[in-house]
Amino acid sequence: MTALTAFSVAADAPLDTPEQLEEQLRFIGATRYHSLHPFHALLHGGKLNQGQVQAWALNRYYYQSTIPIKDAVVISRFRDRDTRIEWRHRIADHDGDIGTEGGIERWIKLTEGLGLDTDYVESAEGILPATRFAVEAYVHFVREKSPLEAIASSLTELFAPNLHEERISGMLKHYDFVNPEVMSYFSRRLTQAPRDSEFALNYVKQHAKTPYERQLVCNALIFKTNVLWVQLDALYHAYVEGHVPPGAFVPAMP
Amino acid sequence: MTALTAFSVAADAPLDTPEQLEEQLRFIGATRYHSLHPFHALLHGGKLNQGQVQAWALNRYYYQSTIPIKDAVVISRFRDRDTRIEWRHRIADHDGDIGTEGGIERWIKLTEGLGLDTDYVESAEGILPATRFAVEAYVHFVREKSPLEAIASSLTELFAPNLHEERISGMLKHYDFVNPEVMSYFSRRLTQAPRDSEFALNYVKQHAKTPYERQLVCNALIFKTNVLWVQLDALYHAYVEGHVPPGAFVPAMP
Repeated sequence: MTALTAFSVAADAPLDTPEQLEEQLRFIGATRYHSLHPFHALLHGGKLNQGQVQAWALNRYYYQSTIPIKDAVVISRFRDRDTRIEWRHRIADHDGDIGTEGGIERWIKLTEGLGLDTDYVESAEGILPATRFAVEAYVHFVREKSPLEAIASSLTELFAPNLHEERISGMLKHYDFVNPEVMSYFSRRLTQAPRDSEFALNYVKQHAKTPYERQLVCNALIFKTNVLWVQLDALYHAYVEGHVPPGAFVPAMP
Repeated sequence: MTALTAFSVAADAPLDTPEQLEEQLRFIGATRYHSLHPFHALLHGGKLNQGQVQAWALNRYYYQSTIPIKDAVVISRFRDRDTRIEWRHRIADHDGDIGTEGGIERWIKLTEGLGLDTDYVESAEGILPATRFAVEAYVHFVREKSPLEAIASSLTELFAPNLHEERISGMLKHYDFVNPEVMSYFSRRLTQAPRDSEFALNYVKQHAKTPYERQLVCNALIFKTNVLWVQLDALYHAYVEGHVPPGAFVPAMP
């Protein structure tokens, strides 16, 4: 398979059929998804202290809490009612409803379980600027690119369940400050993500009709892997290598 | 002076007068401008090899070449003709004109002088994804925030001349692959930046009329310092600590 740049599949990548598109997407996942990032090896292998896990959860909260905003923008791109209906449950998955819990509240259970103040987490005043730029790039992407690319950028969900399983078992095994209750975000996603990614994969296979459109789909997935990778690079630089940028969260505990 | 978060001045920062605003802005510069970043200490102190300097120039090209786009968006925010006229020369400063050189061409002299292929530099396919996110955040900021904040985000120029002087003398002294000709971008900016920053400083002092508006101005400058800082964090992580993200530039020379 041909080499990728930081942002694009090779111009000669074979993308003549929907099956070749799926093959290329799975290749991108296998080589670029953030399951491969060294920060995850530390997180899942019990190599981080509680303060470092706090930093991860604090920053990732900003990503999680932006997803329903991103999905609302995706919905806004479609005049086609069926696609809007299909996409709508994603907002509810994260926001929940009056009296029922959604993904964002489950993430707050995690940050609370780790000992972080919820007001501070929700304020986002202590996150890394790189987190903010990466997450906001995702919202801008689905607003500015084509509707096809907006859907394609969600395809990292194809690769999420394996990562979540590894995370749940790894973190429960290694950290005494983690229990199944605070990990409920991930266990819930194990059933949500496959349904969502199956729709998105079928959508792009059906609607990308030319090699050029399939290239756009691939590059949207590469873009999204960058959104995730940049967040972990920034965490690693700040909290593993110790270069916390000015004003960002400094763990009170080792 | 009160503490800043990653994104904001403290709610109780004294911002009752234009003079207090200027004082707060200069405090932000003194504590958050990227002249303080450890990557610059390495760059100006001769501690980087040519490949690392290439990586810096390659990534920074994306920032430089986006500035006229950013400034066109700033102009587009003003119905007031006088402000548009005042701002317009910034596009010319960077783009030059048919037959005359601008800042972008001067930057290409630098990347060529360092041995980089110009097509590759201009393609931006090998830059760090964090560079792209930070730079595009700047364009989005001036499009989405108030016109006052759009102007305020340029105020890092207040602090640029000292940094450029340090860079010119440090790089000429320490690197045999650098000569005055390839450093012409910076020598030219020594006269351009003070004129521009004087206008912007007077503008925000005059047009921010309440403590709340002065806070927005300060936060716009903090935002911009983050845009610059994130780029150097990403360079440091990739090319000093050796974690080059997938697909990004890998120096051919040590």
